[in-house]
Amino acid sequence: MKKMELDIDISNLSTSGSVAEVAKEIEKTPEKNRRDFLRKGFLFSVTAAAALGGVGATKLQAQPHVNPENLPPNNPEWGLKWGRDNNSDPYGFPSKYEANVVRRFVPWLTADQKAAVSFTPWQDLKGIIVPNGLHFTRCHGGVVDINPLEWRLLIHGLVDREVVLTLEDLKRYPSVSVIHAFECAANNGMEWRGPGLNSLQVTHGMVACSEWTGVPLKVILEDIGLKPEAKWMFPEGSDPAGVGRSVPIEKVLDDAMLVYAMNGEALRPEQGYPVRLFLPGWEGAIQIKWLKRLKFDTKSWMVREESTKYTMLQSDGHAKMYNWSFEANSVITSPCPERSWKGVKKGPIIVEGIAWSGKGTITHVDVSTDGGKNWKEAKFTSIVLPKAVTRFAIEVNWDGKPMMLQSRATDDTGYTQPTAKQLVKARGKESVYHRNAIQTWEVKSNGEVNNVHIYA
Amino acid sequence: MKKMELDIDISNLSTSGSVAEVAKEIEKTPEKNRRDFLRKGFLFSVTAAAALGGVGATKLQAQPHVNPENLPPNNPEWGLKWGRDNNSDPYGFPSKYEANVVRRFVPWLTADQKAAVSFTPWQDLKGIIVPNGLHFTRCHGGVVDINPLEWRLLIHGLVDREVVLTLEDLKRYPSVSVIHAFECAANNGMEWRGPGLNSLQVTHGMVACSEWTGVPLKVILEDIGLKPEAKWMFPEGSDPAGVGRSVPIEKVLDDAMLVYAMNGEALRPEQGYPVRLFLPGWEGAIQIKWLKRLKFDTKSWMVREESTKYTMLQSDGHAKMYNWSFEANSVITSPCPERSWKGVKKGPIIVEGIAWSGKGTITHVDVSTDGGKNWKEAKFTSIVLPKAVTRFAIEVNWDGKPMMLQSRATDDTGYTQPTAKQLVKARGKESVYHRNAIQTWEVKSNGEVNNVHIYA
Repeated sequence: MKKMELDIDISNLSTSGSVAEVAKEIEKTPEKNRRDFLRKGFLFSVTAAAALGGVGATKLQAQPHVNPENLPPNNPEWGLKWGRDNNSDPYGFPSKYEANVVRRFVPWLTADQKAAVSFTPWQDLKGIIVPNGLHFTRCHGGVVDINPLEWRLLIHGLVDREVVLTLEDLKRYPSVSVIHAFECAANNGMEWRGPGLNSLQVTHGMVACSEWTGVPLKVILEDIGLKPEAKWMFPEGSDPAGVGRSVPIEKVLDDAMLVYAMNGEALRPEQGYPVRLFLPGWEGAIQIKWLKRLKFDTKSWMVREESTKYTMLQSDGHAKMYNWSFEANSVITSPCPERSWKGVKKGPIIVEGIAWSGKGTITHVDVSTDGGKNWKEAKFTSIVLPKAVTRFAIEVNWDGKPMMLQSRATDDTGYTQPTAKQLVKARGKESVYHRNAIQTWEVKSNGEVNNVHIYA
Repeated sequence: MKKMELDIDISNLSTSGSVAEVAKEIEKTPEKNRRDFLRKGFLFSVTAAAALGGVGATKLQAQPHVNPENLPPNNPEWGLKWGRDNNSDPYGFPSKYEANVVRRFVPWLTADQKAAVSFTPWQDLKGIIVPNGLHFTRCHGGVVDINPLEWRLLIHGLVDREVVLTLEDLKRYPSVSVIHAFECAANNGMEWRGPGLNSLQVTHGMVACSEWTGVPLKVILEDIGLKPEAKWMFPEGSDPAGVGRSVPIEKVLDDAMLVYAMNGEALRPEQGYPVRLFLPGWEGAIQIKWLKRLKFDTKSWMVREESTKYTMLQSDGHAKMYNWSFEANSVITSPCPERSWKGVKKGPIIVEGIAWSGKGTITHVDVSTDGGKNWKEAKFTSIVLPKAVTRFAIEVNWDGKPMMLQSRATDDTGYTQPTAKQLVKARGKESVYHRNAIQTWEVKSNGEVNNVHIYA
């Protein structure tokens, strides 16, 4: 972060209604009001640099009362000179001060960067929509760049009329737009054997939520005709790793879509541009990217990605296939290891987080400050939609004593997120996928936040 | 667009389940099926290059039946070699093939590029969420770059406790996330005197829709105390043009927010980073960007931006102040001048568009193909939320005869979008703001689409 010039004199701040002028005005207010302000104002005092973690190294203490020293440490030049041309960015970017808000990688996690995972920085996000530039990615053979004019989709097998569609053919079918969560089966997967990295971005950064637009597969199949003996669909992508999966016909005819837009604009290359399969509430890996064909047949293909991988190991050593949808899950996003309470004033403070379920609508989220002994219901602070990320928040009183913070989501199927102990009992500690145990953040008395497991 | 190599032989396409292999398989299907396909397949035939306008110059006709010529014109190399590294973009960007999907400017519209307008490319968008990089912009003195650690907000005047907040102070208050449309009062403003530019992006590109996160002003005022005699709020921004507006206290206490995030991430600089005022359903100009202070007082300030500008001229020559909220409005996004039906096969075709209202929820949208003589109700194809953009679509049968396409939105206040004739009668032709007349797109028999006005 480049520091601004320090040699601008406060007296130069002659803009009407400048902070300097109004600060002087406040100085004239009666002594009692100023005392009140002095007393109450401290409630929101916070070490901004710590809380904005990573933006800059400057320690900056909010001032407890209004006087000229309350001005920013460097007299800002904004508002005193023309800004940048408004046409400088035909496609806009975040502020340079947000350069730290990015997807992150764990280099040793995969054999190479073609098959890598990038994680969504939930510690920096608000609301439920994840901007496309920050949606987590998982590729098996690198990001494929497809020319949309040359893209084709073959639909064949047990259909009445086999077709090869261009992108514009596909776009002539009626489309719908739906807001849904999207989660990789391996989200939280590094936590099976015990606490993994001390990072919300890594523990829960493989879930996102977007508005998806595309054509319901049902619509296409009504047009070209599906033979009654078709029980499975095999979507295959133009992935150099040869990625395909078997999808049961019930899901295909329920809410499967061929999507080509995401949060309004075209799918991003790393999400399958120009067209991917979308199966609301199901694990990401089955939602084939860079789609090139759909084959309909009588039985499952038992391919690598559904027989040796993406199966769920149980505590008895057996593995279960076909664990497609993700169950109710939640995590606290503030505080978290990356957004701790170091330097934060004690007292009332907001704890907030995200909850989601691939099976239905989140009906309530409870929060515990004592590792699950006592629970209080949080409030929803966003729209609540089926199979979508939902925001929750609750005010807690932090007296500076250590806390064991947890959140626990319930969806409208009646399912409640399990404890780590319950999950280990059912599935052991050697699994990879679909880990949705209650997450514990240990808050130390100095405000530090750590990823811990409680198996008691 | 770089053309791919042409010298790869089809026989080299040995990937399992390649389009080439499967095409051969289809060639083996009985003659009758192939004839059916030949007959029905043509329904979706379209000149892809024309429909994808601007992406590439290659004319590319979808094939009416499946054979090896059905392969893309150049044998694609995707899927045959490793893709790009997955960690190449920590903050991701659209595909290079989408380089044409950008905000656009009309250079002569404003005196210089500090006070310019950029327009959202609705002709390229789907769903209701507009990606932040494509949200229209309107600045009065250029884009201001504020250091969030140095940003301060002064709240003063008729409050019990005057405060200066840092960004982290503000973020300690509980936040909410809401999905709402955002519209400039001048959207469609170039249409008052007659048809303006032949472009959806210009006629209706100053409306967008996002998920906004911030603190309800009510929450802050409950904390610091609002004096009963406070009737107006004056928000002022760090805009070099000195931009502020008077906001009645009723709106402040209803749903006004101080927002710091937009579609999950921090506000973009051109949208007021780090904090702007947000007033759901009201014209954009009053939602002050780069906020530096809020003053509470007994009466309106009658500043330039609410007395000489942003007033509504009536047909009797008088101008009305305080026309804050935008009324029900709609426009067809496909087809439109930029996304015509040139080269598109006649027959059933989807007409789609967006509707929005600052006063409530869209309850229905009607579509006419004959300039408003007959109407048919369209279907909603997205989530329908109050004060938000809503998607609609309807299938029409295009027989190649000219059409006068219109859409007409109604909201839950009972208000219906007026015709151009009704609007001219009420407000003349010399106005600038809040034009929400029914838009007419003339579809010529060659598929060309033009912006026309019907005053009959």
